[in-house]
Amino acid sequence: MNLKKTIIEIREANWFSLLTTFIIIFYALMLGLKTVESIEQSIFNNVLYILDLLVTSYFLLEIMIKIYAEENFMDFFKDGWNIFDFVIVVVTIIPMDNTDFAAVARLFRIFRVLRLITARPSLKRLIGILASSIPALFDIILLLFIVFYIYSVMGSFLFVNVDPALWGNFMTSMLTLFKILTLEGWSDIMDAVMVVHPWAWTYFVSFIIIASFVLFNLFIAVIINKMEKEHDDKEDKKLDLILEKLIKVERELEEMKKNK
Amino acid sequence: MNLKKTIIEIREANWFSLLTTFIIIFYALMLGLKTVESIEQSIFNNVLYILDLLVTSYFLLEIMIKIYAEENFMDFFKDGWNIFDFVIVVVTIIPMDNTDFAAVARLFRIFRVLRLITARPSLKRLIGILASSIPALFDIILLLFIVFYIYSVMGSFLFVNVDPALWGNFMTSMLTLFKILTLEGWSDIMDAVMVVHPWAWTYFVSFIIIASFVLFNLFIAVIINKMEKEHDDKEDKKLDLILEKLIKVERELEEMKKNK
Amino acid sequence: MNLKKTIIEIREANWFSLLTTFIIIFYALMLGLKTVESIEQSIFNNVLYILDLLVTSYFLLEIMIKIYAEENFMDFFKDGWNIFDFVIVVVTIIPMDNTDFAAVARLFRIFRVLRLITARPSLKRLIGILASSIPALFDIILLLFIVFYIYSVMGSFLFVNVDPALWGNFMTSMLTLFKILTLEGWSDIMDAVMVVHPWAWTYFVSFIIIASFVLFNLFIAVIINKMEKEHDDKEDKKLDLILEKLIKVERELEEMKKNK
Amino acid sequence: MNLKKTIIEIREANWFSLLTTFIIIFYALMLGLKTVESIEQSIFNNVLYILDLLVTSYFLLEIMIKIYAEENFMDFFKDGWNIFDFVIVVVTIIPMDNTDFAAVARLFRIFRVLRLITARPSLKRLIGILASSIPALFDIILLLFIVFYIYSVMGSFLFVNVDPALWGNFMTSMLTLFKILTLEGWSDIMDAVMVVHPWAWTYFVSFIIIASFVLFNLFIAVIINKMEKEHDDKEDKKLDLILEKLIKVERELEEMKKNK
Repeated sequence: MNLKKTIIEIREANWFSLLTTFIIIFYALMLGLKTVESIEQSIFNNVLYILDLLVTSYFLLEIMIKIYAEENFMDFFKDGWNIFDFVIVVVTIIPMDNTDFAAVARLFRIFRVLRLITARPSLKRLIGILASSIPALFDIILLLFIVFYIYSVMGSFLFVNVDPALWGNFMTSMLTLFKILTLEGWSDIMDAVMVVHPWAWTYFVSFIIIASFVLFNLFIAVIINKMEKEHDDKEDKKLDLILEKLIKVERELEEMKKNK
Repeated sequence: MNLKKTIIEIREANWFSLLTTFIIIFYALMLGLKTVESIEQSIFNNVLYILDLLVTSYFLLEIMIKIYAEENFMDFFKDGWNIFDFVIVVVTIIPMDNTDFAAVARLFRIFRVLRLITARPSLKRLIGILASSIPALFDIILLLFIVFYIYSVMGSFLFVNVDPALWGNFMTSMLTLFKILTLEGWSDIMDAVMVVHPWAWTYFVSFIIIASFVLFNLFIAVIINKMEKEHDDKEDKKLDLILEKLIKVERELEEMKKNK
Repeated sequence: MNLKKTIIEIREANWFSLLTTFIIIFYALMLGLKTVESIEQSIFNNVLYILDLLVTSYFLLEIMIKIYAEENFMDFFKDGWNIFDFVIVVVTIIPMDNTDFAAVARLFRIFRVLRLITARPSLKRLIGILASSIPALFDIILLLFIVFYIYSVMGSFLFVNVDPALWGNFMTSMLTLFKILTLEGWSDIMDAVMVVHPWAWTYFVSFIIIASFVLFNLFIAVIINKMEKEHDDKEDKKLDLILEKLIKVERELEEMKKNK
Repeated sequence: MNLKKTIIEIREANWFSLLTTFIIIFYALMLGLKTVESIEQSIFNNVLYILDLLVTSYFLLEIMIKIYAEENFMDFFKDGWNIFDFVIVVVTIIPMDNTDFAAVARLFRIFRVLRLITARPSLKRLIGILASSIPALFDIILLLFIVFYIYSVMGSFLFVNVDPALWGNFMTSMLTLFKILTLEGWSDIMDAVMVVHPWAWTYFVSFIIIASFVLFNLFIAVIINKMEKEHDDKEDKKLDLILEKLIKVERELEEMKKNK
């Protein structure tokens, strides 16, 4: 039973999370540097082969520690993040280097870097905040879709003869509007259209103001709002507690008055 | 009376809102994909014809449900959003495919996507927040207008001989300044002017700092402020209630003291 | 005395502020449209001449109303905004159309648009908030200056032989860094430098992260902070009041206990 | 002892901080202007030589004041900022103008501008806030790293034959993705890739949405959150104090009730 305690302690320890973080980053960088041609390949390949074995072992050990630390080893699979971890480790272990899928298998190994998320509790929390702001963002995305849709259909209807590569159909117009949303090269796109349709600046200026200025900033506002929510909720609870206590005090006083 | 209850329940149901959302998005995408030439047109046209009938029927059914769910059917028209819905449905129903306005009628159908707003209560609320921040934004827009105006008149006065296409008159200067506000290609515009007027960087740098950095961020600040307002107002009311209760307690205590 | 009351009422009236706003914007747009060549000039000039007289009269009338509305007419000049108004009106009245300064005088008239600020109390408040955030922004500007300075001296030391037009001396390097701060065309500037100095990406990437990502967002954060300050201060005062009252209640209770 | 008091007063005085600020900025600008070729060099060099002596003396005097103002002169070195100051002053004093390191020494002098930070208490506080938000930013940077890593490996795997200068290996792909993160010229990069891989827009659009829109704004949100923290903490303490006092009042009332 002493071993279990130690293992739980290890699982919760800060250095364990930091060690995993470091190992994953180091491994990822090595995997990346392999693609740089100026680095001697033969030696590098050997280093990477050993590193690969080590990382695989470390991952297996880590998962075993986490499974063993649970009361019941099936509890491990009740947490979505653990399943996520398990799948990544298992999938990237399967030996496929000599099969037809070797290239794909090698590409798949890059997803090991996703384990950085589960290695750090604070990152899991951040992803949680992001996920919880999706419902609020969904409405803004819908609004953006409406704006994109109307401008895209109008664009492919009005400007198709100016440049079919940009305004040819609904899909290409959407992509063109996405470029304009990021403000990248929008003035060149407008200048080309304005040669044919001198009033076209209204189309572009109104789209940029609505989509890029207003809706986009709403996006930021929602995320910032979400991050502050946590604190606001804590404060709200305190205020409610204060109110509750005050009402009690008030009632007590009234009672005293009556009893007199 | 039982039917009315069911219909009111349907109107308020989450799945009803989600169904409408889904139908509108699906229809909009179909309408959009029609413009992609690589897709077989003859089959697609038939699909779209049937889809059009279905969507029109669904919209009519939905409006009828909403009207029937009201106590008095005229109450339906008391809500601005309902009128908005009604107009879109009616206008896009009118059969004009064989008239001279066929092209315009087809273009008009894209506004059906605007019904996404009324299909989702949370989107209506978001539009409400946006609308309520317009008065606050109006002052910033006025400030931006002042800055744009002064720089535009000065620009068309000073730089007209450099490039009349950019600085020819008050209107083109305004559009050029809008490009600079979005920071798109501003350094090329400046470089061209600086060949003739070496001190012109003061004009551009000051405009970018004032308009793009300060005023633009004020824009974001106001929207974020507006979104937090709702929570702040709730908090404010709680604080007021606490204060009120405290004053009452205080008075009670003083009374008790006197009565002794 | 009745007249004075009416005039004070006019000064405070919402429609008076709106009328002034409208007149200034209309006049400004007319002045601007004059520069558009496609508009018939001879008629337009006459319209503008009459408009000029009307606006001048209105401005004089408005200032007289504001001066008359004061207890003592010298009180008018105690408010900085009033002096600002007065100077703009007086300077743009001086008849110089037939002197050597005609062109300058005409250019000066555009500053009449600045009177929009004083015509709207909410705009005056906005300018006040902006002004009050300058001390906080000053430190960020100083930090930006430090970063700009170090990178600019280093840039003109290291990259001068790549492109003297961009890195020739301290001043041109500053302007180049300002372009990079706005992210406009920075990758072209970097690509040109990297041909000679392959490691130069560290210079550009670090500058963008420090100046454009971190310091620039600090800028936004400070402005947003300032706008929320007003509400926070109100809340703070309420909390202080609650605390004060609670301490009083507490003391009273203790007193009652002793008196028993 | 009177002298010490005066010196402590000087150290804390606002004008002392402002004087140091002004001297450093003036010196920095002079040092910078020296690189502008159109300015007469011989005279300027003499001015700069004298200025250099004066600034060095002022810095030494300032440090001596600060050391003398401490109870025990070793206390001076207990503050990290003081050591920072000391190192900058000492390193830039060492006379190396006639050694082989003359050029480096001259370049080093630009770091004197960093002393602006220690000259202003408010700047030190700002740096403190920035430093304290690094742990929170670290997780976002890690998330960005994960996204950059996966897209970069995928990019160099898929697009290497399109343009090796952009997608040649892991490192160049990283730099290309950084360009795309800043939205600078991303549409040209995409257009080039889409000639070969027509579906490549999914790669670019998804990267921009994830990295540039979501993660980047999270960055802003965290910094803004940090700046508001200070106020929130103050408010939290007040609420805690109010709660504490209320609980005491409640207990007192209950006691009174029992004693009756």
